[in-house]
Amino acid sequence: MTKAPSGLVDRIRLARTEGVGPIGYARLLGRFGNAAAVLEALPGLARTAGRARLSIPSRAATEDEIAATVKRGGQFLTLGDPDYPALLALLPDAPPVLVVLGDIRHLSGRSVGVVGGRNASLNGQHIAASLSADLASQGVTIVSGMARGIDGAAHEAALGKAGGVTVAAVATGIDRPYPPQHEDLQARIAAQGAVVTEAPLGTEPQARHFPRRNRIIAGLSLGVVVVEAARQSGSLITARLALEAGREVFAVPGSPLDPRSQGSNDLIRRGAMLTETAEDVLGALPQGPDDFSFSQARTIIAETLREEPPPPPAEAGKIRSALLAVLGPAPTSVDDLLRHCQFTTRAALVATLLDLELGGFVESLPGNRVALIANQGG
Amino acid sequence: MTKAPSGLVDRIRLARTEGVGPIGYARLLGRFGNAAAVLEALPGLARTAGRARLSIPSRAATEDEIAATVKRGGQFLTLGDPDYPALLALLPDAPPVLVVLGDIRHLSGRSVGVVGGRNASLNGQHIAASLSADLASQGVTIVSGMARGIDGAAHEAALGKAGGVTVAAVATGIDRPYPPQHEDLQARIAAQGAVVTEAPLGTEPQARHFPRRNRIIAGLSLGVVVVEAARQSGSLITARLALEAGREVFAVPGSPLDPRSQGSNDLIRRGAMLTETAEDVLGALPQGPDDFSFSQARTIIAETLREEPPPPPAEAGKIRSALLAVLGPAPTSVDDLLRHCQFTTRAALVATLLDLELGGFVESLPGNRVALIANQGG
Repeated sequence: MTKAPSGLVDRIRLARTEGVGPIGYARLLGRFGNAAAVLEALPGLARTAGRARLSIPSRAATEDEIAATVKRGGQFLTLGDPDYPALLALLPDAPPVLVVLGDIRHLSGRSVGVVGGRNASLNGQHIAASLSADLASQGVTIVSGMARGIDGAAHEAALGKAGGVTVAAVATGIDRPYPPQHEDLQARIAAQGAVVTEAPLGTEPQARHFPRRNRIIAGLSLGVVVVEAARQSGSLITARLALEAGREVFAVPGSPLDPRSQGSNDLIRRGAMLTETAEDVLGALPQGPDDFSFSQARTIIAETLREEPPPPPAEAGKIRSALLAVLGPAPTSVDDLLRHCQFTTRAALVATLLDLELGGFVESLPGNRVALIANQGG
Repeated sequence: MTKAPSGLVDRIRLARTEGVGPIGYARLLGRFGNAAAVLEALPGLARTAGRARLSIPSRAATEDEIAATVKRGGQFLTLGDPDYPALLALLPDAPPVLVVLGDIRHLSGRSVGVVGGRNASLNGQHIAASLSADLASQGVTIVSGMARGIDGAAHEAALGKAGGVTVAAVATGIDRPYPPQHEDLQARIAAQGAVVTEAPLGTEPQARHFPRRNRIIAGLSLGVVVVEAARQSGSLITARLALEAGREVFAVPGSPLDPRSQGSNDLIRRGAMLTETAEDVLGALPQGPDDFSFSQARTIIAETLREEPPPPPAEAGKIRSALLAVLGPAPTSVDDLLRHCQFTTRAALVATLLDLELGGFVESLPGNRVALIANQGG
């Protein structure tokens, strides 16, 4: 069996290090150039940041993860790889590491997300299926989350078309199909499209992982169609993430008497495209990553990833105290922080925030915002 | 029994003259000052226009119509009366004569039209009823067309609220309730609100009268809610008339699988407000006739009603030939005609068009457009 390349091992180790989120990962690579250099610098950075212990996975453990994943037919893609899907890479918190079952080229197709409730009505499932089948037969890849209800109907409809391609973004390890009754569906999606996850082998479903799965659905797609979504449902999170990433959002209307449509109706009221047929989607879909509508998302990521040299230690301590004094668990924009800490430069501020993130004190969030992590150091 | 005032009799005679449409009525009054003067000039104008016979109803017949209408509890309102509803008067083709059952003051309330299909689903009727009841209990007058389905549900719901007021605009005479099974409903509407029509006593339902009824619904209302409307249904005509008059258009969404909602979904796609509850309507309703959104409608009517002196006979003949050569049954804008007939002034052109309308050759349409009447002079 071929040994995994050392660069891949290091990138996976860095991505799997506790306290290194996707945004921190990209910033650290930006500062140090490659994962090996980051891993070498990490213990020192963590000490500076006041963190006693930093759990970087060992090289051996990571090589084992890679081998076990490959044995199950999985394949790794890391941010920066030529095959990493270009649209997904535009997200400021693009996943550093993806595990893929199936043909990775399907992640870079002309894709549309089709999402909705698990407790969907039969009519809702029928609409999801009919939209997905029509889009699939026009060469569009159908991306969804492999859940029951709308997701399942969308995947199945795409699989039912000759040449239809579908991609499932999941929140579990590739060896833990979820829901269990979709084990066969996952196998068929992998055979005719691709299954993609951030989670290592053995990861069981956990509520906190689903928003990360939703951002992969939004990130891979030129647009997202919400078929039946109640208020405060996960599909609305996917729609919001899609909007933040500059993607088109489509929503299928429903009767005001059906609570399963209130969320999608709300989306239309706020400007999502009212969608009844595949033509409604095809007519409004951007051409691709070069489309004008993505320029804002690209600006955000460019700003987020700009390399920031660290400030001198004395200044860092002062900035650090000032930040800890004003940050709270609610997200605060870096611009607001910069206005508050007028004595420093943006570069020094961002570098100190990175140290605080590595120390487990703060969390970087998309949109150039940060939040204090509750119970830090507890 | 009191004799009807002579001014009222003349206005009704003019309005009931064949070949004098609502726009022609307003223009003639504008040119001659009052109905008596127009009636005196009409035979001469008709001869000039090449019309052999002009059927002006006799004074006696009109006095009979008035007496019979009053005997049935009806009351006349003519354009220009202080009690004529101000919002309706803003239409360029405002009805010259209204017959009203009930309290005429209800025509000038803060009103919302609620319209939809006759073959509405139970859910659609439930939504219409719930919206109408909530609006009525907020002091909003519910205007509709007294048809089966959505219209009936809207009227009934308003009547069911203490103090609820509803207005029915109908296409028949007040002595010919339509549909017949709504005879009792019409009586209850007249008792608690008002029934309004352009049609004289004895007028039976005719398809061509319904769009005129729809413009009264739109014209009386600050906004129109379309609940369930199939494509190419009468409710969409009401919505279009409302838009042309600068009124707000609201539409209740429905499943793409239900053809009864495709028209309302189309409206939302084109910018109508997605509406689920009375709050959606109340939040977007203009305050009244002085609201900014009506200024455009007011400009149009001002232009339409501007007094136009007639051109000298020789020039009129030349313009007349040029117009008859280029006009067809499809609506043509007066601006386009003016560009075509470069040798004339707008005033001479409009006056000649009025002559042609009186001759039964052309028809004036809202939006400053005219069309040739098929089979004219046949």
